[in-house]
Amino acid sequence: MAKATQKEFKRAYGLNEIALVPTNLTIDPELPDISTKIAGFTLDFPVIASAMDSVVNPKTAIEIGKRGGLAVLNIEGVQTRYENPEKILKEIASVSKADYVSHMQEVYKKPVKEALIIKRIKEIKAGGVIVAVSGTPQHAAKLGPLAAEAGADMFLIQVTVISTKFKGKNGFTGLDLTQFVKDMPIPVLLGNTTTAEVTLDLMRTGVEGIFVGIGPGAACTTRGVLGIGVPMASAISDCAAARDEYQEESGRYVPIIADGGIVNSGDICKSLACGADAVMIGSPFAKSKEAPGFGFHWGMATPNAVLPRGARVEVGTIASLQEIIDGPSNSDDGSQNFKGAIKTCFATLGASNMKEMHDTPIIVAPSLLTEGKIYQKAQNLGMYK
Amino acid sequence: MAKATQKEFKRAYGLNEIALVPTNLTIDPELPDISTKIAGFTLDFPVIASAMDSVVNPKTAIEIGKRGGLAVLNIEGVQTRYENPEKILKEIASVSKADYVSHMQEVYKKPVKEALIIKRIKEIKAGGVIVAVSGTPQHAAKLGPLAAEAGADMFLIQVTVISTKFKGKNGFTGLDLTQFVKDMPIPVLLGNTTTAEVTLDLMRTGVEGIFVGIGPGAACTTRGVLGIGVPMASAISDCAAARDEYQEESGRYVPIIADGGIVNSGDICKSLACGADAVMIGSPFAKSKEAPGFGFHWGMATPNAVLPRGARVEVGTIASLQEIIDGPSNSDDGSQNFKGAIKTCFATLGASNMKEMHDTPIIVAPSLLTEGKIYQKAQNLGMYK
Amino acid sequence: MAKATQKEFKRAYGLNEIALVPTNLTIDPELPDISTKIAGFTLDFPVIASAMDSVVNPKTAIEIGKRGGLAVLNIEGVQTRYENPEKILKEIASVSKADYVSHMQEVYKKPVKEALIIKRIKEIKAGGVIVAVSGTPQHAAKLGPLAAEAGADMFLIQVTVISTKFKGKNGFTGLDLTQFVKDMPIPVLLGNTTTAEVTLDLMRTGVEGIFVGIGPGAACTTRGVLGIGVPMASAISDCAAARDEYQEESGRYVPIIADGGIVNSGDICKSLACGADAVMIGSPFAKSKEAPGFGFHWGMATPNAVLPRGARVEVGTIASLQEIIDGPSNSDDGSQNFKGAIKTCFATLGASNMKEMHDTPIIVAPSLLTEGKIYQKAQNLGMYK
Amino acid sequence: MAKATQKEFKRAYGLNEIALVPTNLTIDPELPDISTKIAGFTLDFPVIASAMDSVVNPKTAIEIGKRGGLAVLNIEGVQTRYENPEKILKEIASVSKADYVSHMQEVYKKPVKEALIIKRIKEIKAGGVIVAVSGTPQHAAKLGPLAAEAGADMFLIQVTVISTKFKGKNGFTGLDLTQFVKDMPIPVLLGNTTTAEVTLDLMRTGVEGIFVGIGPGAACTTRGVLGIGVPMASAISDCAAARDEYQEESGRYVPIIADGGIVNSGDICKSLACGADAVMIGSPFAKSKEAPGFGFHWGMATPNAVLPRGARVEVGTIASLQEIIDGPSNSDDGSQNFKGAIKTCFATLGASNMKEMHDTPIIVAPSLLTEGKIYQKAQNLGMYK
Repeated sequence: MAKATQKEFKRAYGLNEIALVPTNLTIDPELPDISTKIAGFTLDFPVIASAMDSVVNPKTAIEIGKRGGLAVLNIEGVQTRYENPEKILKEIASVSKADYVSHMQEVYKKPVKEALIIKRIKEIKAGGVIVAVSGTPQHAAKLGPLAAEAGADMFLIQVTVISTKFKGKNGFTGLDLTQFVKDMPIPVLLGNTTTAEVTLDLMRTGVEGIFVGIGPGAACTTRGVLGIGVPMASAISDCAAARDEYQEESGRYVPIIADGGIVNSGDICKSLACGADAVMIGSPFAKSKEAPGFGFHWGMATPNAVLPRGARVEVGTIASLQEIIDGPSNSDDGSQNFKGAIKTCFATLGASNMKEMHDTPIIVAPSLLTEGKIYQKAQNLGMYK
Repeated sequence: MAKATQKEFKRAYGLNEIALVPTNLTIDPELPDISTKIAGFTLDFPVIASAMDSVVNPKTAIEIGKRGGLAVLNIEGVQTRYENPEKILKEIASVSKADYVSHMQEVYKKPVKEALIIKRIKEIKAGGVIVAVSGTPQHAAKLGPLAAEAGADMFLIQVTVISTKFKGKNGFTGLDLTQFVKDMPIPVLLGNTTTAEVTLDLMRTGVEGIFVGIGPGAACTTRGVLGIGVPMASAISDCAAARDEYQEESGRYVPIIADGGIVNSGDICKSLACGADAVMIGSPFAKSKEAPGFGFHWGMATPNAVLPRGARVEVGTIASLQEIIDGPSNSDDGSQNFKGAIKTCFATLGASNMKEMHDTPIIVAPSLLTEGKIYQKAQNLGMYK
Repeated sequence: MAKATQKEFKRAYGLNEIALVPTNLTIDPELPDISTKIAGFTLDFPVIASAMDSVVNPKTAIEIGKRGGLAVLNIEGVQTRYENPEKILKEIASVSKADYVSHMQEVYKKPVKEALIIKRIKEIKAGGVIVAVSGTPQHAAKLGPLAAEAGADMFLIQVTVISTKFKGKNGFTGLDLTQFVKDMPIPVLLGNTTTAEVTLDLMRTGVEGIFVGIGPGAACTTRGVLGIGVPMASAISDCAAARDEYQEESGRYVPIIADGGIVNSGDICKSLACGADAVMIGSPFAKSKEAPGFGFHWGMATPNAVLPRGARVEVGTIASLQEIIDGPSNSDDGSQNFKGAIKTCFATLGASNMKEMHDTPIIVAPSLLTEGKIYQKAQNLGMYK
Repeated sequence: MAKATQKEFKRAYGLNEIALVPTNLTIDPELPDISTKIAGFTLDFPVIASAMDSVVNPKTAIEIGKRGGLAVLNIEGVQTRYENPEKILKEIASVSKADYVSHMQEVYKKPVKEALIIKRIKEIKAGGVIVAVSGTPQHAAKLGPLAAEAGADMFLIQVTVISTKFKGKNGFTGLDLTQFVKDMPIPVLLGNTTTAEVTLDLMRTGVEGIFVGIGPGAACTTRGVLGIGVPMASAISDCAAARDEYQEESGRYVPIIADGGIVNSGDICKSLACGADAVMIGSPFAKSKEAPGFGFHWGMATPNAVLPRGARVEVGTIASLQEIIDGPSNSDDGSQNFKGAIKTCFATLGASNMKEMHDTPIIVAPSLLTEGKIYQKAQNLGMYK
């Protein structure tokens, strides 16, 4: 018998595998305070629109901001490469599947223009809402200060996987996060990670928010191509534990934002129960009438010329941003009236605020909803006859 | 390494994940006593029809009652809003999917009429059966006494999630359950819950029955919209433990009724083995020739104007209430002859009565039936060729 | 918090959830002895054809017997109710789905004729093979001796669920198994059960074989209708442990036969590795050109007038009994050349005989084969594009 | 209660059940050294093409070798039975499903010609790449030296299941592996196995590589026919532990090669993280424009006249070998640019080389990618509407 021990595999859970359990207290659905605080700003609605070209342009950023949420503009996307991005976005929506990847690689070859970054930020600012923008670590040192200067209120550095140490050709180099955060005149947020260890390390750099989630999103093929990915329920719960530990250590509360794999209001509620302070969502907003993607949604990994990932998904158009955020809902699938759903969930679980929501019990449970619906459809198709 | 501990996730089981195991005793199928006692009344058949407009009207209440079961009339549904509910129900069955939610919101805007409550109760009473009615906590203080006065034998307060404490705009208020139960001249039953803790608290208010089940029903989208839901096998087993504890504490036996996610006679049997004293079912009766839903079935959360949930499902029409309850069955899918199935199950497991049925062993097992059927159909479709 | 403990649910495994693991020994596929001993008779091929009307008639009993296996004739089926069963079987195969259950109830109303029992037994006997017949406990006292007298070599009492104690209208009565076994001039076998406890009790009655399996078969809807069923891998393993314990206790080795849910040669091999001495199969033989069911297969619970169970499945016709048992196979799905597959499996696992096969290691593993095939088909359907 | 203990079932994991987790270090994707050392030769790209007739001929062997990988030629396949194998391969691709098995049995009846073995080896050698060939244990003693003589650089003995002990008709005989390895002038590699125990035993024979994987491949039906199979993640991890133990014991590092069930670049990355030094893949290369299978792929078990296994799968043609190995990829499903994906994965996980890759953390996680895609397709089909 071999004595060397084999690798240990630890079980992790996805949002579709968990469910929330009511306790002995319920409250009036009008009462829960579902607001959250991100980088010094209070959001009435704990939802952030993803920095994706199919989701956020100045117009949707203003609309989502006015409704209490936050939208992040990608300042290395089509909005800052093209004077008239609408034309480009229409082309992306209409290109054939066969030509899609090469078309996208072409579209994103066009260089980012600093003047357009400034212009877009000012457009959002003019709407009277918080201006959040995102960029890559490669260009953060240059574009971060530029965005702050133009009026941005917070800056996100987002890469598929962020780490505290980066080894480049000349040893451990790359962006010095601690220095960058110190130098930036506006709050900096970082992502994405999935582990407590990295969360803790990143928080110690002075950032004001951590994005949690690698590989679980609908427009993300990281897991198939790289084998990398962590189910969200476990990832959020793990990173939330690090946040609490960091607060004990430093006295500073740094919010974590669940990002990826969140498709309906039930998922939002579960993410908050797992410990998230807010969620970042793409596809639910990409389905809005106002969405810049014209009914399509795609990840930002696609343009990568060497290793394209991230598929274009036809998500369709289901309702206005007003209906999706504030209702009333004309559907019962959790795709609309997010505020109503979150408030009702808080009330049903007896949670008065985000902190209490973090303490509600969670169970591992097979996804009855999905199963039920498949069962029902299968019945209609005569599969059980 | 982060030291803060992450949230614990406990595994819960659904009815489709468990199976019953015979022991060394079997009995003659004619012998088992499958009756149960609810609120002082003995039901020969431990099945209660859900207080849903697609399931119970005075006619089906009488038919189900005469066959030994019990049907609950929703006194805040179409039966008490419309003089001629049949016309309304036909419209609900025929409205298009696109117009369904708004149509339902319209239908349920019409106010409840006290005169119709009294009329419906008297209609059922005239049939010579037990009259059970249900209402919401909001109107219980007013409609409860009215129903008792009109001749109802028991009153159910049913909300998606019930709690012992309710926090309203003016602090902890809402319906005082203990006082309400004391004041009501007829037995009061409450639901729904899924935990031992709440069951115990509710039993201490003096109620005579607890409904168990949140989020698992076929016409219930609570889990997708709110993320809330507890698989039935675990929920029933947990609440049954509380019932037994309460009996030790008080000497009083308060039955628990499994409600939601029960689709065939196998599910009924499993629910009883998990510890339920009776089951409440909707869709199996909605498929009867006599059902008021005309082959359709929908949850009562739909009319909620702010956050519609609960889908309309076309369940079809399969057999008469006689065939469904007493047989003979012309099918082998567990949708008919519930009495025969329950008796045969008791006999096969060697259970002489409900108490012995509660003690039969249970295993966690993949759903072979479903898998087998899917497998078989998949084979027909050539998926394995 | 409630203190009463909730019911414990123990995990059980199906054959589709396990797989066999090779060790450091392999042997020449010609070498393994795959024979087994049942009731004093040696079978060269450890497979028994189910006592089902769609599987066994005198002709297939002889053919299977000559090939080293064993076929059990149901002496309360169509073969002993009708002089010309072929006509009846053709009708069953051609009746519409809607009329099936009532037609079957009609067919099985015709009384069993003792003369036909004698005739069928003599027909099989004339073929020079072991004659095994089965009957129900209700008629065993009368038909058992009759069958022995006519020349049967062993008698099976088979009911869905067998127990050692039976409570009838006049207390604990029913067939006295110990006395029956003692009185019968030929060996008696019993089934079905799934637990070690019942197996041990039954072995003590003096029987010479126990059938293991409740609820997992393809033509068995016990689980959907009654909620009863035990996955086979756990059931076999549990009962095999009882067999070994009984051997220690009594010095007598009583074989256990896995019965139900076995669909291909891989399942046969897994059943033997779990501890079965032989397997009983229906559908794999119902697919033979010689099968009496004309491409259809049904369980014996269907005729039950009160609670019909057991569906008729169109299994089709794939090959001759020779090809299914001895090969050569013209397919690669485990439906043919059972002997070759069993020998190859023994050889691959280094098992020289049935006893060594019982000691081979088993793992719990997702069904990669099935998943792979579904994946592949899903790909063909474009589901991954 | 029975006292004999039932068999223990240990859980094993497949590649589709695990995922990789980033840590606090990332590195520049240009930096990781993804090379591996097999039998004294360094491969720049840790991927080996399976010794299957649908995958490797001299032309693809040269192309794959030039790109840093390795291809193994089956010297008992069509290449060495036919002067003009292309004609035969075209026929295999075009034969009807019904005639496939018998056609294959016919094709492989034609004897292997030694002259053709020498010719094919010289053809590959002329391409300037490492020449690897494979044969069965039955013919290894004769064909091994012949291949070495002709210029082969390494010799693989591959059978479905390899063991250190083989019991033939005259006791423990068969190929003496230790002697064979000693006698061969070129390195010998062996497979397949799945357990640490056998890996350790085999390494002690002096071989220079062990292939790991039984029953999980797409063109392998071992599990359905024989019930035998081990999920890859557990098998690799188990055998890697044996390799490390053997290195401690002997000072010699013998690589293990994961073989079977690997369908995309994510699977390759996961296999390496589980502890594999390289992977062997068939279907991903069978989809190349250069593949000898003309868009079809089949296992080598099929020609077995007695027990055919291994199905022919139409895998289609997706891209050139250059695109599959070196990119650029025109797809995002992990089927192309394997080098880019492996490098990016190493970089994302902070692994500088194969040894560090073996130490990256692994979690058990539901396959979100697959689920997500099915979900999405199901949505398109209206299954959730």
